[in-house]
Amino acid sequence: MKRIWVAVCFSIGLISQTETALARTLKTSVGSLQVTVMADGLAFPWALVVLPDGEALISERAGRLRRWQRGQLLEAPVKGLPAVAAVGQGGLLDLALHPDFIHNRWLYFSYVEQQAGRYTTVLARGRYHAGRLSEVERLFHAEPYVSTQHHFGGRIAFDHDAHVYLTVGDRGQRDWAQQLTRHPGSVIRLLDDGQVPDDNPFVGQRGARPEIFSYGHRNPQGLAVDHATGTLWLSEHGPRGGDEVNRLVAGGNYGWPLVTYGREYSGAEITETRQRPGMIDPKWQWTPSIAPSGLIQYQSHLIPEWQGDWLSGALKAKMLVRLTATMDNTALEAVEQIPIQQRVRSLYEAPDGALWILTDSGSGQWLSLSPEP
Amino acid sequence: MKRIWVAVCFSIGLISQTETALARTLKTSVGSLQVTVMADGLAFPWALVVLPDGEALISERAGRLRRWQRGQLLEAPVKGLPAVAAVGQGGLLDLALHPDFIHNRWLYFSYVEQQAGRYTTVLARGRYHAGRLSEVERLFHAEPYVSTQHHFGGRIAFDHDAHVYLTVGDRGQRDWAQQLTRHPGSVIRLLDDGQVPDDNPFVGQRGARPEIFSYGHRNPQGLAVDHATGTLWLSEHGPRGGDEVNRLVAGGNYGWPLVTYGREYSGAEITETRQRPGMIDPKWQWTPSIAPSGLIQYQSHLIPEWQGDWLSGALKAKMLVRLTATMDNTALEAVEQIPIQQRVRSLYEAPDGALWILTDSGSGQWLSLSPEP
Repeated sequence: MKRIWVAVCFSIGLISQTETALARTLKTSVGSLQVTVMADGLAFPWALVVLPDGEALISERAGRLRRWQRGQLLEAPVKGLPAVAAVGQGGLLDLALHPDFIHNRWLYFSYVEQQAGRYTTVLARGRYHAGRLSEVERLFHAEPYVSTQHHFGGRIAFDHDAHVYLTVGDRGQRDWAQQLTRHPGSVIRLLDDGQVPDDNPFVGQRGARPEIFSYGHRNPQGLAVDHATGTLWLSEHGPRGGDEVNRLVAGGNYGWPLVTYGREYSGAEITETRQRPGMIDPKWQWTPSIAPSGLIQYQSHLIPEWQGDWLSGALKAKMLVRLTATMDNTALEAVEQIPIQQRVRSLYEAPDGALWILTDSGSGQWLSLSPEP
Repeated sequence: MKRIWVAVCFSIGLISQTETALARTLKTSVGSLQVTVMADGLAFPWALVVLPDGEALISERAGRLRRWQRGQLLEAPVKGLPAVAAVGQGGLLDLALHPDFIHNRWLYFSYVEQQAGRYTTVLARGRYHAGRLSEVERLFHAEPYVSTQHHFGGRIAFDHDAHVYLTVGDRGQRDWAQQLTRHPGSVIRLLDDGQVPDDNPFVGQRGARPEIFSYGHRNPQGLAVDHATGTLWLSEHGPRGGDEVNRLVAGGNYGWPLVTYGREYSGAEITETRQRPGMIDPKWQWTPSIAPSGLIQYQSHLIPEWQGDWLSGALKAKMLVRLTATMDNTALEAVEQIPIQQRVRSLYEAPDGALWILTDSGSGQWLSLSPEP
């Protein structure tokens, strides 16, 4: 009975994959992009990494880490993950490979952990070999735990010196984003083993959490390194309006909730001002909101017109947005919208320069976009 | 080859068990107590619980939870434990059954967790069925994590209203024991699901950790409820001298490191005073130190002379100590020492009134002491 069921599902999978692959192209400013379904039937996929041997790992929010090999999703998930609290917006979140993964096999991952009915965002790593994580170790958890189940942040990125960064959302506790005594509403910067770098901006400041690199964030769902400079860029959700793209500097205060272009969901103003001394303006902001998620700087020659541009996914607006530097190079502007018709959770540049997308759905897809041959 | 090795070990185990059981009786004030080896070959056993069906679970510090059924230790440990950091004095520590275990199967356990090379004491619970823990959930962890590997505390006890208490040692950070902003050096009091009780003494006090019930402790390694009153009693290690037995009251400050009978290991005085206003005196103190570990109030009719007395184990002094209330009932006094010739980690009163001991060794034993028939 079980075998039959698997066989049926597998056939449906093949049909839908073929149909979709044949059916879809996307019109863009650089011509048609062909859409290939790499995998589907993913349960709210959040992140993806590709290992040196071509195996891909995909996190599903409910707490599974799926394996993909030679075009096939394996049924058996990766073993050895810690307990994940899949509640609200939380669960198993981002994935990242250590820059020297090829030698040390460290897979970094973020997830939500429960403690006595409260939740927080955790960064951990484990060594990945053949379907199993071993030597799993916690590197960081945001303090304090809170009973709310949203605004976990959770994006991970490495800079060029192998510092690891983690975004932590404000957990719905707005004021905390301005408080250095608490982690929510900040970006965390650590050495690859989780130690606090000596040169973090708030090291030695009484009462401040030394892991904080920047603060005044609401719920950052995109984080990526600028390939040329090594600087980190971040996208974050505003309330009603006021989604932002920010360029991160050490110790920077990005203003939430004292400065925002967004409004309360009721329509009421949150702040009367868009700028304050000591608070850093976004490089771009979206009002109304698109709910940006996933951020990359595109660098391949495959689509030369996009090189150096930033690409953001959008959950609510179900599209990709391409952003390019303004003429004076002081900010970004959104120059193109590419409708995807599905909620976009994450974006990646594939090894061959294709653009990979994870869609946010109970039957989520891993899509690959590349120029028609 | 492996089978032969197991067979040899098993035979050695049987011989030593038989020899020991036949060889040992202990002279005490209530006559000879016969020593039976319930199990041996345990790797630094820390705690023991007996389930309603007679199965016993024994924690080994390195992170295994052993099963014992009908006189035999099973080779396969309990599955489903979280990752335990077995470093220094840390590892898998105490065990306790929920007062309503028979209905809810909740096993509480404490352990040491690593995060980025720092450590802390964690309280968790899971439902125990047939060799497996499920629904494991964190209830509490002490903040902050510290790189030291000693003074984890870790004793768990329930009071008569199903509040759960956990001792947290000072982690070698003496001053923290007087700081309500940090957990080390305190006793924690929680509801059985890990929530903070509204009537905890520091709830609502700005900056104070609301989980704290009492503070000013150094490294409490014994914790037990007074059967008649429901009050918690605790034993803790002093530095050089100054081991204490304390009767806990809500919000109580037990003085460490401002008041102690102990000295620095160098011999230098730590404090010039043994009492301070607002700090609670011990009910008993040992100088020189015995390193008390394990504390119970004996209540069975099996040894009627001991009913209502307190029994403490001792690691360093390798003995049991019996303490009884002073004439005016304001303190305790140690009235009997029973040499065990092994480091004593934990004490329990067996369902039949026998006294159970876990010895602290890489080849630790579970001993049962009862009057000769």
